[in-house]
Amino acid sequence: MSTIHRLEPKIFHTTFGRNEPAFHIASGDTIVAETRDARGQDKHGAPLPDSMKPRADGFEYSPNNPLVGPIYVEGAEPGDALAVHIEKIELNRPSAWSSHSPNFGSLTGEQYSRRLLLNDPLPRLLFHWSLDLERRIGVLELTESRITRFELPLHPFIGSIGVAPRYGRVETALTPGEYGGNMDCVETRAGTTIYFPVWARGAYLSFGDIHAAQGDGEVCGSALETTAEVTLRVEVKKQWAIDWPRLEDADFLMTTGSLHSLLDAVRVAQIEMLNWLMNDYGFAKWESWQVISQASTMRIGNIVDPNYTVVVKFPKALLAVPPH
Amino acid sequence: MSTIHRLEPKIFHTTFGRNEPAFHIASGDTIVAETRDARGQDKHGAPLPDSMKPRADGFEYSPNNPLVGPIYVEGAEPGDALAVHIEKIELNRPSAWSSHSPNFGSLTGEQYSRRLLLNDPLPRLLFHWSLDLERRIGVLELTESRITRFELPLHPFIGSIGVAPRYGRVETALTPGEYGGNMDCVETRAGTTIYFPVWARGAYLSFGDIHAAQGDGEVCGSALETTAEVTLRVEVKKQWAIDWPRLEDADFLMTTGSLHSLLDAVRVAQIEMLNWLMNDYGFAKWESWQVISQASTMRIGNIVDPNYTVVVKFPKALLAVPPH
Amino acid sequence: MSTIHRLEPKIFHTTFGRNEPAFHIASGDTIVAETRDARGQDKHGAPLPDSMKPRADGFEYSPNNPLVGPIYVEGAEPGDALAVHIEKIELNRPSAWSSHSPNFGSLTGEQYSRRLLLNDPLPRLLFHWSLDLERRIGVLELTESRITRFELPLHPFIGSIGVAPRYGRVETALTPGEYGGNMDCVETRAGTTIYFPVWARGAYLSFGDIHAAQGDGEVCGSALETTAEVTLRVEVKKQWAIDWPRLEDADFLMTTGSLHSLLDAVRVAQIEMLNWLMNDYGFAKWESWQVISQASTMRIGNIVDPNYTVVVKFPKALLAVPPH
Amino acid sequence: MSTIHRLEPKIFHTTFGRNEPAFHIASGDTIVAETRDARGQDKHGAPLPDSMKPRADGFEYSPNNPLVGPIYVEGAEPGDALAVHIEKIELNRPSAWSSHSPNFGSLTGEQYSRRLLLNDPLPRLLFHWSLDLERRIGVLELTESRITRFELPLHPFIGSIGVAPRYGRVETALTPGEYGGNMDCVETRAGTTIYFPVWARGAYLSFGDIHAAQGDGEVCGSALETTAEVTLRVEVKKQWAIDWPRLEDADFLMTTGSLHSLLDAVRVAQIEMLNWLMNDYGFAKWESWQVISQASTMRIGNIVDPNYTVVVKFPKALLAVPPH
Repeated sequence: MSTIHRLEPKIFHTTFGRNEPAFHIASGDTIVAETRDARGQDKHGAPLPDSMKPRADGFEYSPNNPLVGPIYVEGAEPGDALAVHIEKIELNRPSAWSSHSPNFGSLTGEQYSRRLLLNDPLPRLLFHWSLDLERRIGVLELTESRITRFELPLHPFIGSIGVAPRYGRVETALTPGEYGGNMDCVETRAGTTIYFPVWARGAYLSFGDIHAAQGDGEVCGSALETTAEVTLRVEVKKQWAIDWPRLEDADFLMTTGSLHSLLDAVRVAQIEMLNWLMNDYGFAKWESWQVISQASTMRIGNIVDPNYTVVVKFPKALLAVPPH
Repeated sequence: MSTIHRLEPKIFHTTFGRNEPAFHIASGDTIVAETRDARGQDKHGAPLPDSMKPRADGFEYSPNNPLVGPIYVEGAEPGDALAVHIEKIELNRPSAWSSHSPNFGSLTGEQYSRRLLLNDPLPRLLFHWSLDLERRIGVLELTESRITRFELPLHPFIGSIGVAPRYGRVETALTPGEYGGNMDCVETRAGTTIYFPVWARGAYLSFGDIHAAQGDGEVCGSALETTAEVTLRVEVKKQWAIDWPRLEDADFLMTTGSLHSLLDAVRVAQIEMLNWLMNDYGFAKWESWQVISQASTMRIGNIVDPNYTVVVKFPKALLAVPPH
Repeated sequence: MSTIHRLEPKIFHTTFGRNEPAFHIASGDTIVAETRDARGQDKHGAPLPDSMKPRADGFEYSPNNPLVGPIYVEGAEPGDALAVHIEKIELNRPSAWSSHSPNFGSLTGEQYSRRLLLNDPLPRLLFHWSLDLERRIGVLELTESRITRFELPLHPFIGSIGVAPRYGRVETALTPGEYGGNMDCVETRAGTTIYFPVWARGAYLSFGDIHAAQGDGEVCGSALETTAEVTLRVEVKKQWAIDWPRLEDADFLMTTGSLHSLLDAVRVAQIEMLNWLMNDYGFAKWESWQVISQASTMRIGNIVDPNYTVVVKFPKALLAVPPH
Repeated sequence: MSTIHRLEPKIFHTTFGRNEPAFHIASGDTIVAETRDARGQDKHGAPLPDSMKPRADGFEYSPNNPLVGPIYVEGAEPGDALAVHIEKIELNRPSAWSSHSPNFGSLTGEQYSRRLLLNDPLPRLLFHWSLDLERRIGVLELTESRITRFELPLHPFIGSIGVAPRYGRVETALTPGEYGGNMDCVETRAGTTIYFPVWARGAYLSFGDIHAAQGDGEVCGSALETTAEVTLRVEVKKQWAIDWPRLEDADFLMTTGSLHSLLDAVRVAQIEMLNWLMNDYGFAKWESWQVISQASTMRIGNIVDPNYTVVVKFPKALLAVPPH
């Protein structure tokens, strides 16, 4: 019997890790929750009240990307995978924002702890998008261009979703990794299942940071940042030890790597796909490599965070046999 | 009046550069030629005879990727762009090969002049694909896997196409750059127009190295290597000084960057798109950056050559105004 | 009045961060402590007893690089720098070990979460060095080479020394950063002063992981790993907000950057030196850049950890004026 | 019988490659020549006359770094090494210049074909250094700083020296590689012997681009650019097939790697040293790796050119046996 949990968070954490679980669910349960945007604003644009911020416990973290969670999943143990089926992402705010910042993103000098260039930094600019939720269109009024209006079809997805990392805690705001996190990857949309490695008993799932649309790489450092009501079904896959998050939808097997450099992210995601086809679809090593080389595609999630995310996609139609 | 030239090369060069032109055409002309595969074999599998190899002139180049050309285009001058419309790529051989090599490609130690790792090198392996040209399917018999046969839909494209580089000569076999070259990019297919910067009077167009199919990144170091009859229409765009090759098809504007590292290739292709939208489509700088950040996608051409190729794609449907 | 504290740790932590302080000292005090080696062994080769390992508190960390500390320094606050004068590093064990591992280090495929290559991994090998503490020579008996013995002059330094990072906790075992940490940099030797940015009230200094000798880059993934009695004098420099650790000895100003990639580490260390000469030594921006470009040298700390460390060195003899 | 050749070039080439040899010498001969600076100016500051520039032959190259050569060395054949003993570098001009440019160098957006950032480019600035050749001091008058004068000890070295590359021609101005070239490496000074792989019969040695002083990395994009009279003794080492230039002086064996990225340059130089110790000094593979890891240092030649140069140095005092 699957239970549906409507979650009403009292605290929105800004770290992935073994924070006090906010909710407990069983394998197979469904959860429904309204998310905050990357700055903590809700569907009415109201900021996160101090009472809903995590108490200081000797650690200081960035206040960005407050997430729903952590959700303790009964029965999830290291060595298992956590399957998260994204059933719905219903945008619930008629606006989104995007921005760029003085030293953020791979096309400029990067933030405080990274590439500090000799050039002058960029101006900080904020852009307001109107979202027509019925037509599924975002509209940006242009003020400096020869044209005055830009319309963009929406394709909502979850920017940040992950479990407790192998060690310690990681800020939700930026760094994706082997626990998922801020992958900013357009494939984490309705219809996709994400498989996370379980590093901690209970898994500690958290999510939020909805993007109404985004280009590959999120090159300016932000997407159409907004809110949604998200419906997820969560299942424990016992004894499926994977090293990195994997994704699957109707058409593709997908593997991810989140590392700095971009090439290392490619390498990890490619090798993950090699392993998947070898272990579950009957291919020998070098033949697996050939079919991946000739038939897979790649998407670039983000190239602005401390780690970059790459997704390798393999068409399921080419797989003759079901996984054993 | 456009002329159709059926080219019968006497020499297949293995460098891009100001080699003695093999053909002269006018702007607007169409050319039709049969290509050799990456090893020089023709549509019957016959190797390139010594008489069709370039004479030694004090330089020694790799024998790989012998190309049709160079084609001198009357009226093409530095400061212009050369538009090459890919009208047809008709596969004309029922077989293709792919391979991997001991120290080649970004997932292993790289070749003699690059990453020489402490690990033992890979085995050299060659794979034979049957091409069903009617069904447009490639078939690989598997000998080491639990499954025995892999079928792959074909999507033929030109692996190597370029003009004379800014300086000197570059081998066709490997290094793509600001002149195009071995970009191994799936977008150079029938229906696409490539715009090359003209670096030398006459442009010196060359092409060949047909791939019947390939995954993003060509990660094992080769695609389904084969031959085709290629039909191209060539036009000089006067006074359109671009820095890197650009592509266009019915749906997308596309820009390229070919550099080592992968991130630098991304940067160049992104900035090229920024410039294109600013100069021809009425966007101011920061608003151009926003719409690219939110609406463009990327493809990775190759990550095995000394330079990697990245393509940024922007949907033409989102461009309200025609270019001026 | 400076106090000398002889520290007898009851717990050896394996994270930098706001762990329960083991010791409290005042600015100006001197501390003396015996360190454990990277595996936790003491000067007699005895392993770290379970009773001296940190209690599990919901986080799981690598057991490597157990350090002395954290030491709470009274009066140290964010915006200050912590000056740590390395007065003595007295090796106290007549042996050291070094090793290489299947997937560790930049000359091979990197560890579990990084570069997973197609090549077979390396063998795991352990090497035993005898240390002649009087002659300050390490001796390795060679078993597979044509020669049978290799002697190496010792130059002991501290492999891991740092303060609490800006956010959260970081394992001592590997990742250096803006808090110092496992920089594996040969300059952290007797006679050097390290200036750390203070990120947390009290600073939370920890140290250990003595290397009896090491080449630049620590390319095999380990140095001559051993133990020592270390004497440090610690001072708070009020109101000196620096972004990254800096070093100074009789001859050089030194700045550090610890990042992945190596080039980013170079950039950060270079810009740090630019800022130092501008802010404290009277140079204008572009003239500072010129003198750094023409007069500084660089050392590479490690290229095996998730972050690489680079040190930029500027000769103090070339600085005409004292800092204000 | 060694012959001393005083070279009086009629043409200064700006490419490494199989250009018409300007001089022929025998193995063991000594050559003496006055060099031009990176812009072509001689010891009086006079620019290179058009009559001394290479004739256009269908290739266009950058005019920078005009070199003495190529020198055809009788008996040098592929599979040999060319030993070039740098006997003297006598500075012969009382001035040098240095500069930085809008988009050049790794601390800013890189040049036209590389990293084109969103930030505004740097100003172009030229700096004039007086050289006191007797005291061996360079002096820069500062105009914008609080201090007014900067004195720098000189350590002259050859910025660009190389042989014909494996394939084609490469501009002398920028890109170092397996043929040497613009390595901008402080170790190519008087007292050092450089061993080049011979790729072309006759080797085709060229050199010039004297730097009176330079910091590691040449981070602003130029050194103290000047002229000198250079004395070299040239010897063919028969049947010594090396892959990359190596250096040797009284104290060190040195290997080089010149690649983009910096880490790849490190890798190549490290593996080259591994091979040298294995092949000529009696070490087995893993023991060679250990002694290199524990005893070698690195210098960074340049990080501004398309390829970066890294030098690995191993102390000869630690080598018990002479090479066989």
